[in-house]
Amino acid sequence: MQKIALGIEYDGSRYCGWQKQKNGISVQDCVENALNIVTAESVSVFCAGRTDSGVHALGQVVHFETDVKYSKSAWTFGVNRYLPRSICIRWVSLMKQDFHARFSAVSRRYYYYIYNDKIRSAILFQKTWHYTKLLDVCKMSRAAQYLLGENDFSAFRSAGCQSYSRCRNLYHLRVIRIGQCVIIDIQANSFLYRMVRNIVGSLVEVGCGNRPAIWILELLKSCKRSLAGMTAPADGLYLAEVKYPDHFFLSDERM
Amino acid sequence: MQKIALGIEYDGSRYCGWQKQKNGISVQDCVENALNIVTAESVSVFCAGRTDSGVHALGQVVHFETDVKYSKSAWTFGVNRYLPRSICIRWVSLMKQDFHARFSAVSRRYYYYIYNDKIRSAILFQKTWHYTKLLDVCKMSRAAQYLLGENDFSAFRSAGCQSYSRCRNLYHLRVIRIGQCVIIDIQANSFLYRMVRNIVGSLVEVGCGNRPAIWILELLKSCKRSLAGMTAPADGLYLAEVKYPDHFFLSDERM
Repeated sequence: MQKIALGIEYDGSRYCGWQKQKNGISVQDCVENALNIVTAESVSVFCAGRTDSGVHALGQVVHFETDVKYSKSAWTFGVNRYLPRSICIRWVSLMKQDFHARFSAVSRRYYYYIYNDKIRSAILFQKTWHYTKLLDVCKMSRAAQYLLGENDFSAFRSAGCQSYSRCRNLYHLRVIRIGQCVIIDIQANSFLYRMVRNIVGSLVEVGCGNRPAIWILELLKSCKRSLAGMTAPADGLYLAEVKYPDHFFLSDERM
Repeated sequence: MQKIALGIEYDGSRYCGWQKQKNGISVQDCVENALNIVTAESVSVFCAGRTDSGVHALGQVVHFETDVKYSKSAWTFGVNRYLPRSICIRWVSLMKQDFHARFSAVSRRYYYYIYNDKIRSAILFQKTWHYTKLLDVCKMSRAAQYLLGENDFSAFRSAGCQSYSRCRNLYHLRVIRIGQCVIIDIQANSFLYRMVRNIVGSLVEVGCGNRPAIWILELLKSCKRSLAGMTAPADGLYLAEVKYPDHFFLSDERM
């Protein structure tokens, strides 16, 4: 058996999330189905981050095991042929046996896109969160700095989180504006359940003027989810990148 | 009766084009339906540019007549409430009686987006033309300059064109690259049937190395559609902006 990693992009608006569900079609269903056709085996894939319904991915990473041997381009083009147009394999890599898409990952990076305008966008429907009140990006950036580093993120953890530890290490959190688009770029070793969307919801409370920047620090220290802002909608969230230790040589695959 | 102009954005992938058709739902159907609900009248709208099936718009302009009087924001929010999420009114303006969305227009501007990568994009599906061979944007830019000015564009006119004159005045044609995206920005007094998509198809022949830049000039002079490149797909085309004489004061409306 050989272990293969895939980089996957998808438009999550058409699926019930990454993971198989009784009701609805998941991205995992589609990927496993395409791999089953191409390998004529029954394949199980393991992902780096289980995205919720409506959440997109630019760089989801999965692995699976197979006895079938193809060239890298045969894997990419072969599997893409059997995937819906809203899912595609971006890259393929042969991995050592000790690789695991989820457990080997050292960091995850997400982008969150807010369309900040009085009027909704038709073109960006289901691709962004439409937020009407003008957001002060400088204030959001200042607030964001309080969250950096190793912290207990209980205040940003949704009910249903299965993680034992509530501590995460936030490496990077940047808020920028390009025209009507406010982009939040966030990276951590890993994230609690809905942590990115909960952080975005609270940063928006600061950006629209409801709260001062320092409130984010008070919120973090409180460890109380009930004090935080709303959970931002799935539409604006993109799993952008998953990083692995250098010895897996995965960064070379990503063109 | 008062005359009202609307700026409209839409994702054309969900419609059979701007214009009413026997088979399929058009953008015009949706806009007239929403206006009928809001005005309790039977409204007919006239557009600046009839976009084909699958073509998008950021700045389509339409006009209609009504006896109903609302504030501008009541029009925008009222009509948007009855439109599908893939269509929206961006702005509203009260017009003088001599305004006509199509006949008063002095120029149209289109963007064409090519996703230039070996592998298709899932997120940009139906929003761009996926083209796999590497495009040389400098060469395409050089070729584009031959088309500027008043010319007979017969070589870029698709069968079924109902226009009497084949001359158009091309004001602006720019080709740029942003990462994997090649963007063609084109403006003329008006366009022949599928002229933008035919120009893009021929510029791509140059960009991928099949033809030299000077071939575009020979093609233009030949006036023969049969010698030109393919018609680029609808997915990448966006009606970006329609301009009117200053005395209509429409540029102020567009925020």
